[in-house]
Amino acid sequence: MDVVRAFHERDRRALARALTWVESGLPEGEELLKAARGQGHARVVGLTGSPGAGKSTLADRLIEAVRARGDTVAVLAVDPSSPFTGGAILGDRIRMMRHHKDEGVFIRSMASRGSLGGLAGATVAALALLEAFGFDWVFLETVGVGQSEVDIARVADTTVLVLTPAAGDAVQAFKAGVMEIADLIVVNKFDLPGGERVVQELKATLEFAPPRPAGWQVPVLTTVAQSGQGTEELLEAVEAHHQHLERHGLLEPHRIERARFEIASVIQALGQESARKSDALVREVAAGRLSPREAAGRLVARALEAPDQGGEA
Amino acid sequence: MDVVRAFHERDRRALARALTWVESGLPEGEELLKAARGQGHARVVGLTGSPGAGKSTLADRLIEAVRARGDTVAVLAVDPSSPFTGGAILGDRIRMMRHHKDEGVFIRSMASRGSLGGLAGATVAALALLEAFGFDWVFLETVGVGQSEVDIARVADTTVLVLTPAAGDAVQAFKAGVMEIADLIVVNKFDLPGGERVVQELKATLEFAPPRPAGWQVPVLTTVAQSGQGTEELLEAVEAHHQHLERHGLLEPHRIERARFEIASVIQALGQESARKSDALVREVAAGRLSPREAAGRLVARALEAPDQGGEA
Repeated sequence: MDVVRAFHERDRRALARALTWVESGLPEGEELLKAARGQGHARVVGLTGSPGAGKSTLADRLIEAVRARGDTVAVLAVDPSSPFTGGAILGDRIRMMRHHKDEGVFIRSMASRGSLGGLAGATVAALALLEAFGFDWVFLETVGVGQSEVDIARVADTTVLVLTPAAGDAVQAFKAGVMEIADLIVVNKFDLPGGERVVQELKATLEFAPPRPAGWQVPVLTTVAQSGQGTEELLEAVEAHHQHLERHGLLEPHRIERARFEIASVIQALGQESARKSDALVREVAAGRLSPREAAGRLVARALEAPDQGGEA
Repeated sequence: MDVVRAFHERDRRALARALTWVESGLPEGEELLKAARGQGHARVVGLTGSPGAGKSTLADRLIEAVRARGDTVAVLAVDPSSPFTGGAILGDRIRMMRHHKDEGVFIRSMASRGSLGGLAGATVAALALLEAFGFDWVFLETVGVGQSEVDIARVADTTVLVLTPAAGDAVQAFKAGVMEIADLIVVNKFDLPGGERVVQELKATLEFAPPRPAGWQVPVLTTVAQSGQGTEELLEAVEAHHQHLERHGLLEPHRIERARFEIASVIQALGQESARKSDALVREVAAGRLSPREAAGRLVARALEAPDQGGEA
């Protein structure tokens, strides 16, 4: 199979192969991505929130809703790369797999290597690939534990924070600072006790939040993903936010921000990789004979001299 | 005041000043740190766990316990640098401030700039400074949301994961992968309903955890920080872990790892800073004319050429 040609002909197997290239950091993936980047028109929606909030079930319902409109959709599910926990988290996503025969739906799980909870550079590259492939929607779902929320908000057009009526859920989100980065807040499992109270708490808290770009007012929605209740309203709110971004010229800045994120990820990987390899220099720093900055300079200079695995720097 | 001399004479005001240097990335801080590094004998204990688990109250009790033995202690409390949430989190720490007249106790709050939940390089530099100053103990406390747990485990000698009997607390820790990095697990607020059940769940889960270095068995302890119950046993368990590290030659690797972390942080900060500044290059990547790796190479090379604020690379 000529993967590159097949990719441009929108062959799903080629997409799967290309994603593996990108995930493994192979030069073929970088070449393809360079050629494909900037194409596509996907709306990138990030779903974040604590484990157990029902993000996967909600994503499943949103798939149904966008498919009912005839749109195509890709889901990128990011897991912390722990062999110990990986299985448990993937289990939550089995439900979504019922769409696997639908040509308009593409689901991929990725590990967030190197940064538990955060998005790896490879994830953002995969996102660019899914966009370029031509999906109308890309849902980005992570196990929300801190860094991932912030990262999602940096790369998604619309960030949906999913909470539950569980006592403390809102407080925890508030304390972790994630309420500031949400474009929409959803109280899922709204049929559980305490739902209305949490909605009121959230609305009260939002009054203290810093203003959002171009005066966007963060709505608090309610869903019961298990039954599908509220999904349609959620999708409409996502579309309203997208129109808000479009109207105020805020979509392009999001694309630029995604590229910035990818570059920063490459640099970070470079730093970690070289610090891992150079025991001698690290020992010099530990002993106080070299400053971290001096060591950093030498390591990066060395990494830039060395033939890189991307093959084209 | 000659800060450097005063620092070496163990003047607390000089320490406070030096920490500000380090936090602000001033060259004076780097100089002092270079001269002071590798001195000291502190036991570095990381306290991590979800917001509301009672880490600050527990830290407060541990301060009492180590002071009762005549040891000195510094607490480094790391907050996500959110102007929106900062106040709320700091509020939890007010209790500790009652020690401020005790010369053997030093408490400092730092923002984890740039990486919500994660540790900034400046934090690790501050840690090195507190060690060098000669404290017997350094407690490192963060608002546990994802990345911070992993970072703490990388820099602390002993990592204490603080949970509560609240339903889902253990499951959440398990899912987020943080149970793998804990040397000790504490169920705080053990007087709340469900405590014994959570302890049993944790013990069952630990059987599936990957083995810890040199066969260390992770104990599950219980505390009621509010009343002080269990603090003494916790401190004994921390000491037992420290002896385990000492016996198996694992303390030096921790020191090396801290230096490695600092170097990687410097490279990362350098990269993010330059990616923030270089709109032109980022746009080239977004448009597909340059790969992220090519852009990364150019940016870091440029940053290292430029006169750096650390003044000595």
